[in-house]
Amino acid sequence: MYRIDGERLWQSLAAMAEIGPGEAGGSSRLALSEEDRQGRALFSQWCGAAGLSLAVDPIGNLFARRPGLDDQAAPVVMGSHLDTQPKGGRFDGVYGVLAGLEVMRSLNDADIQTDRPLELAVWTNEEGARFTPAMLGSAVFTGQLPLAEALATCDRDGISVATSLERTGYAGDQPLGRAFDSYFEAHIEQGPVLEDEGLAVGVVTGGQAICWLDVCVRGTAAHAGTTPMARRRDALFGVGRMLAALEDLASRFGDGLVTVGQLDVARSSRNTIAGEVRFTLDLRHPQDQTLAALETAARDCLAAVADERGLSLDVQRHWLSPATPFAADCVGAVREAVQALGYPHRDIISGAGHDAIHLARHCSTAMIFIPCAGGLSHNEAESASFDDVRRGADVLFNAVLARAGRQER
Amino acid sequence: MYRIDGERLWQSLAAMAEIGPGEAGGSSRLALSEEDRQGRALFSQWCGAAGLSLAVDPIGNLFARRPGLDDQAAPVVMGSHLDTQPKGGRFDGVYGVLAGLEVMRSLNDADIQTDRPLELAVWTNEEGARFTPAMLGSAVFTGQLPLAEALATCDRDGISVATSLERTGYAGDQPLGRAFDSYFEAHIEQGPVLEDEGLAVGVVTGGQAICWLDVCVRGTAAHAGTTPMARRRDALFGVGRMLAALEDLASRFGDGLVTVGQLDVARSSRNTIAGEVRFTLDLRHPQDQTLAALETAARDCLAAVADERGLSLDVQRHWLSPATPFAADCVGAVREAVQALGYPHRDIISGAGHDAIHLARHCSTAMIFIPCAGGLSHNEAESASFDDVRRGADVLFNAVLARAGRQER
Repeated sequence: MYRIDGERLWQSLAAMAEIGPGEAGGSSRLALSEEDRQGRALFSQWCGAAGLSLAVDPIGNLFARRPGLDDQAAPVVMGSHLDTQPKGGRFDGVYGVLAGLEVMRSLNDADIQTDRPLELAVWTNEEGARFTPAMLGSAVFTGQLPLAEALATCDRDGISVATSLERTGYAGDQPLGRAFDSYFEAHIEQGPVLEDEGLAVGVVTGGQAICWLDVCVRGTAAHAGTTPMARRRDALFGVGRMLAALEDLASRFGDGLVTVGQLDVARSSRNTIAGEVRFTLDLRHPQDQTLAALETAARDCLAAVADERGLSLDVQRHWLSPATPFAADCVGAVREAVQALGYPHRDIISGAGHDAIHLARHCSTAMIFIPCAGGLSHNEAESASFDDVRRGADVLFNAVLARAGRQER
Repeated sequence: MYRIDGERLWQSLAAMAEIGPGEAGGSSRLALSEEDRQGRALFSQWCGAAGLSLAVDPIGNLFARRPGLDDQAAPVVMGSHLDTQPKGGRFDGVYGVLAGLEVMRSLNDADIQTDRPLELAVWTNEEGARFTPAMLGSAVFTGQLPLAEALATCDRDGISVATSLERTGYAGDQPLGRAFDSYFEAHIEQGPVLEDEGLAVGVVTGGQAICWLDVCVRGTAAHAGTTPMARRRDALFGVGRMLAALEDLASRFGDGLVTVGQLDVARSSRNTIAGEVRFTLDLRHPQDQTLAALETAARDCLAAVADERGLSLDVQRHWLSPATPFAADCVGAVREAVQALGYPHRDIISGAGHDAIHLARHCSTAMIFIPCAGGLSHNEAESASFDDVRRGADVLFNAVLARAGRQER
């Protein structure tokens, strides 16, 4: 088995974190900002030193290429993103890019040539913190978002993606949607599962299905001091029962996730019985069919509470994103690599969005997760251990080599 | 038994509603606004026509007086308020003032002299819609709020009570806190009880005790897609259980009322597990001791849910207002009047705040409630029937006469 140089990768992560340094050990490199430009410049400099050629597409996605023996073959691509949240950590996205760079450097060290060309992608605006939607660059590349629409998107100051690409010098002309053989992305888990179970690596089998519902519950607003309990149609006490029922529901659907993130009482006042309450419902499950059943069950339990209490109920589906199973061949390459390396691991579902979710609709795709402390991310305190960082990149190295074919000189 | 002139009272209510007319049949006369000034001017004109003398105190409370045979005796006072909510009804407050005026007019019609002098009070800023606190004029008169503090209070445009009194010409010099023999206030119920039970009159036995708590529940904010259900410390699902437990609690405390009117999820986002939820809790009961027990039980049930779920809990008491039992002699005078008149009635607690609650700390006090449609108030659609308006004023007439002593000429 091949191994990368853990020290070199760790130092690169530390050096990149100094571009747009945060106050608490993290980084602030909003997409296509001056800081992001500087981060890309440092990355490009490293790529040049590693003998990689650089190309940029019209949405600013950056591709560093190492030729293959069969250079006309579709490339095996690694990648992730260099942009961060306003107060982001030093691993989210950056790890996948620099682990890929470390693979390129280690290939050079070992003087290995691959059959297929290798590429390392830096996707534009993955975080969505400056421009909406998140994962914008990979969405445009894979044809899921029209280029013109993405270019016209503006930040809060009214500055468009197009203007920002011009300013930073990242409006390129490499064609969008080129064929890839496969795509591999290493990333911190952004959840607590691997850490809890003492595992080094998560073999990501896909992205879960997500259903977002908007719920409005209406009762009767009335005076808190003059309305007997038995006469009330209290929308908020009704919602209390709904929250309890929704939470109980999750346990009936295995890996189902149920979250009410936003809740507002309309025209609320301390001494007025709530007449109208709106809340959001985020339902997730790895399988589309089970998510559909979970949605039905959630709607049923909302309706049961509303009926029982004489409340009116409106439930609208805001968004539905189907499950994204990753390709068995790429997931298999990751699993074989981690098994051969002997690192403790498990299969895991990606709960958050990633560029790999878009890429999975374009080519065979897999992801490699490493633990992050406390499951914390989107926070300067985000952290991953030296050993986990090293082991995740070892897995990436071997999976990519297996996929690309190799010849040692 | 004496009876007032229902038609005249009804017409006066209609005429007053034309001052600051609402779009939907109600009125808009914010305290000490130009509309309020016009309402007071119309009232003063009616008082002059009825032979009443007028005096104003330094907080703008207006007193219309009818001499007694023993004019040095402390007066029997009727009253309420003429200010309204921004989109208020035509009965809230106005009814108590104009029912009192109708009593004065009916005394003239019947050529009755009372032993004690009678006064009719218009209290300043009862609604609290323009200046905080509500019931400001009666609080100052009865010494529960310092005059200087009340005068310095400003509305949202920074205009003070003092300035508004100057502008409207209602900064008077009659002494505050004069001795009253007793105080009687007629008012719409602002709740559904009398209407539900088909009764014409509520004999108000006092104001209930109120306890306001501020509750903050903290869990851990985390990603809705990457955090397994078993790993969550979801503050909002915790609050859901608290709401259910609080609602169940009310039934264990007889006439106890439990309301959560405001609830906010801090830094809420659709795909973030709620890390912090704040809500208000409004607890009411006619007896102080039972309210204290209800507060303890509420705190216990919040703590039980928080402990069980590993949430942190902070509960602060925001306000405590003790129960205000009305004087047995005045309540008795109302009860005897309504019984003698043969109107269907019941004893009832005042759930809302009223000037009478302040007056009860100053002199023997009672209130008379009449039904309002659907219990609705603070709404232009507020309504009361002609017959109920008439019957409530009949009760006021006879209770006041019994208290003041009478000689027909």
